[in-house]
Amino acid sequence: MSKTSAGNFFEDFRVGQVLAHGTPRTITDGDASLYVALTGSRFPLHCAAPAAHAVGFERNTVDDLLAFHVAFGKTVADVSFNAVANLGYADVRFLATVYPGDTLRSQSTVIGLKENSSGRNGNVYVRSDTYNQFGDRVLTWARWVMVHKRDPAAPAPEAVVPALPAVVPVAELPLPAELDGTQYDVSLTGSPHLWEDYAPGERIDHVNGMTVDSADHTLATKLYQNNARLHFEERLMADSRFGTRLMYGGHVISIARALSFNGLANALRIAAINAGTHCNPAFAGDTFYAWTEVLERWELPGRADLGALRLRTIAVRNAATEDIADAKVEREGRSVYRDEVVLDLDYTVLMPRRGRPRRRAVRASRMRRAPSRGG
Amino acid sequence: MSKTSAGNFFEDFRVGQVLAHGTPRTITDGDASLYVALTGSRFPLHCAAPAAHAVGFERNTVDDLLAFHVAFGKTVADVSFNAVANLGYADVRFLATVYPGDTLRSQSTVIGLKENSSGRNGNVYVRSDTYNQFGDRVLTWARWVMVHKRDPAAPAPEAVVPALPAVVPVAELPLPAELDGTQYDVSLTGSPHLWEDYAPGERIDHVNGMTVDSADHTLATKLYQNNARLHFEERLMADSRFGTRLMYGGHVISIARALSFNGLANALRIAAINAGTHCNPAFAGDTFYAWTEVLERWELPGRADLGALRLRTIAVRNAATEDIADAKVEREGRSVYRDEVVLDLDYTVLMPRRGRPRRRAVRASRMRRAPSRGG
Amino acid sequence: MSKTSAGNFFEDFRVGQVLAHGTPRTITDGDASLYVALTGSRFPLHCAAPAAHAVGFERNTVDDLLAFHVAFGKTVADVSFNAVANLGYADVRFLATVYPGDTLRSQSTVIGLKENSSGRNGNVYVRSDTYNQFGDRVLTWARWVMVHKRDPAAPAPEAVVPALPAVVPVAELPLPAELDGTQYDVSLTGSPHLWEDYAPGERIDHVNGMTVDSADHTLATKLYQNNARLHFEERLMADSRFGTRLMYGGHVISIARALSFNGLANALRIAAINAGTHCNPAFAGDTFYAWTEVLERWELPGRADLGALRLRTIAVRNAATEDIADAKVEREGRSVYRDEVVLDLDYTVLMPRRGRPRRRAVRASRMRRAPSRGG
Repeated sequence: MSKTSAGNFFEDFRVGQVLAHGTPRTITDGDASLYVALTGSRFPLHCAAPAAHAVGFERNTVDDLLAFHVAFGKTVADVSFNAVANLGYADVRFLATVYPGDTLRSQSTVIGLKENSSGRNGNVYVRSDTYNQFGDRVLTWARWVMVHKRDPAAPAPEAVVPALPAVVPVAELPLPAELDGTQYDVSLTGSPHLWEDYAPGERIDHVNGMTVDSADHTLATKLYQNNARLHFEERLMADSRFGTRLMYGGHVISIARALSFNGLANALRIAAINAGTHCNPAFAGDTFYAWTEVLERWELPGRADLGALRLRTIAVRNAATEDIADAKVEREGRSVYRDEVVLDLDYTVLMPRRGRPRRRAVRASRMRRAPSRGG
Repeated sequence: MSKTSAGNFFEDFRVGQVLAHGTPRTITDGDASLYVALTGSRFPLHCAAPAAHAVGFERNTVDDLLAFHVAFGKTVADVSFNAVANLGYADVRFLATVYPGDTLRSQSTVIGLKENSSGRNGNVYVRSDTYNQFGDRVLTWARWVMVHKRDPAAPAPEAVVPALPAVVPVAELPLPAELDGTQYDVSLTGSPHLWEDYAPGERIDHVNGMTVDSADHTLATKLYQNNARLHFEERLMADSRFGTRLMYGGHVISIARALSFNGLANALRIAAINAGTHCNPAFAGDTFYAWTEVLERWELPGRADLGALRLRTIAVRNAATEDIADAKVEREGRSVYRDEVVLDLDYTVLMPRRGRPRRRAVRASRMRRAPSRGG
Repeated sequence: MSKTSAGNFFEDFRVGQVLAHGTPRTITDGDASLYVALTGSRFPLHCAAPAAHAVGFERNTVDDLLAFHVAFGKTVADVSFNAVANLGYADVRFLATVYPGDTLRSQSTVIGLKENSSGRNGNVYVRSDTYNQFGDRVLTWARWVMVHKRDPAAPAPEAVVPALPAVVPVAELPLPAELDGTQYDVSLTGSPHLWEDYAPGERIDHVNGMTVDSADHTLATKLYQNNARLHFEERLMADSRFGTRLMYGGHVISIARALSFNGLANALRIAAINAGTHCNPAFAGDTFYAWTEVLERWELPGRADLGALRLRTIAVRNAATEDIADAKVEREGRSVYRDEVVLDLDYTVLMPRRGRPRRRAVRASRMRRAPSRGG
């Protein structure tokens, strides 16, 4: 039996199989600082302990996407080490607040398998779940990846394609019980725009762009302990059709979310990712820009303090968003993504609602100093 | 009303206007570690909890410049997003110790405006103040930037140019009450040189140099949540007269201060920056060197344990300091900075004084383990 | 007396001389996060507080190599600032657990001197010791470096070459008293292989590779406050025979150890480094691969829960391990390292033993939340 793992190939998966992923990870203030350094993110609940405390949290929370990337990274060695492509995400739900100091572990269940017509690979569908040190499930998501077969002659399994929701419905959106939107103060971000101000159909071009260097994306991907070879081995990738290391698609999601602060600063939290597609590969040296379309505006049952916005954020590389009216283009009779488009993300955020008296968010009397101080 | 901000243009500013900057930030041990990784800084109060405790602090303190960059970063979106150039700093005072766990927020007041003769831009003078979670003011500084006009036809405001001190006088230097210089042990740094050993007129060439790569300076600038486009968008900057992203000038200050450890190791703390000029732009790939001239040596009222040194540190790029006698050169009858010079920083540091019995700085009995340990 | 230090030259060293190195350093969660981002390391005791707690530690521990690099970095300014080459390590012992929050200081004693026949440099042998804030010695090692003479005419000292052990014998291996291997759960890493499964003579090719960019290796080296000029000054090194900055050899050790997770995931801890050689220089842009040979398998006196494996890990640059049968090659009648080989590391790890009932490692009842949480 080999001591090393070359990952699972398509014929190694069985529907119903449970994969317990290795190396649980305690997320710390150090990870949070690195996430800011890698993305420039400025969303206040993750940056400022008193601000998070003022709206009901114990202290500043771990960025939703940092938690997701750490949780996701654990699944790579077992699920997508031999992936040809990461095809999509669905039904990603951020179920519980993650704080610095919490420890995450992940497991995945195979929920579908379908060999491709070439006979050389197949699609694997998994449901992944992440738990904290209390055993609470903090994240759940489905994804499907195209995985190489070890042996092209291996027989095809019975095709099972799971039904996945196109959108996480309002009734199933995880709402943080601790968050009290009435305590939110827009001066925290400097943006006056709240839930009521966004209208379905509206498009927001996020102004700023960001160039990502090779050390940036590989530091991020190593931080998440995602060990997919195509992100790390220049020697291997120089001979591939890409000519260089591929950027972890999740880093593009993080950059797009960070850029979206300019226009969506009060989108305090991601509740769900409905669907995500990495439309084209991204590489070191690319400059990313993003725009967001507001798809839906939802009231939340039992919550007058918070509303939800379903958003579609498109990230492009090396092109100005204002020059691009649509992420897709007609080509040979088919609607396909434009070459510049690297991300099409359909997700749902939580934003405080207007129309109630607000108090100052940062009150010294409630919290004199962040607990990370250790005092 | 646009959801996004394209920043303020020259005609958006009014003398007396107060700008409350977004996203307060809790500085953590993670930020401190990143600061060391980004600069190689070795000043002991920021690196070693027991060393800081032994001279009177609760624990290790946040590097003065890390606090400054975080505080400064917040002002960029409102003050200098549309800056042509950052023209200078004056009267920067480090008023109170910042500890890991403290949360900083910044606000700025417009103190001067002067349109330039071209009519296309103008100088904006601001006084910025930064507060911690107790409401204590921890930093204050003045700076002036040249900012684009949105509309060249907009009328010029009445010119107001504030009087700014050329130097923070001894009587106004902030002195940390908690610091007891008599407890300082030079073995902490390995350098025996104390306040008495430095003489006005002396020049110190700092030996080591440091090359900064693109990921280095952009990680630093993102860590500070400074979102000025010219540091981040290679696509934009490739077409500019610079040809590539500009390095945040503050990173050059940090590199120069870190290099100055070799020669000024016991300059425990920066009390003030009297004046700062980014003389020429700096870019990824540049190797920086620095020298320091001792301008003045001051006794401090009521403090026999500490003295102040007014220093002038010059940083150069891609040139040896020993080949450069003066930062300026005569050109067409004018004294201008040499092309190699990127920073001219006039600042005041605090250094323990000699001539009293010293005890061992690191005493296990006072602090058995750093509080960040969480025990 | 110059304020700056140009480091010690060969003629500055005396056998018996003690060098107390500057700037003690508190290692924090931030350093641990950076270490993960810089290496992708996944060994569980350093990543997961509950996992470390379940086997007896207070919380997650500092990676052995992170502690080593910080401890080593302190010695550079005094020992190897003027090194021609770092010739080797011997008798490196990891004596005590280092936790985040602990503060390390290092000192070195000169144990040997031998001028080289050229008369232009000589070998300096030092024993370095690192202590925590309790005064406990946590690390000890010997190394020898070739150091330039300031003055080639300076007389040669009497040659003293210390006897150094080729291997740290079983009886002297430091064994962590707090670690209870019977509590170890292999599901933490996902690898089922324990001490009994490894046989002397076995070779493990570690599958994954890792490309290191310039910002990666310089961030790591600055984090360790190692200020050797040849890692940092591109301007200086462009004119050297290497043509660019040299990578700190310790970073190659860390990358090799991180890659070895695939095949040695349950090698929880490094007890000793018997010998280490940086066979060839490494540079930014290199892609590293590694294989490990199992040299010896040792039972440990009084420990039925743990065994030791003496390993030899070879790291190569820009070459596939499977194409290389041996690290050395015959050249002109001599056995020399192949050009691709950058590291030959002989070290001893601790691994849990099989054959006893195991309980779940992560038990919420023992530790509800990591102490770094600050709660």
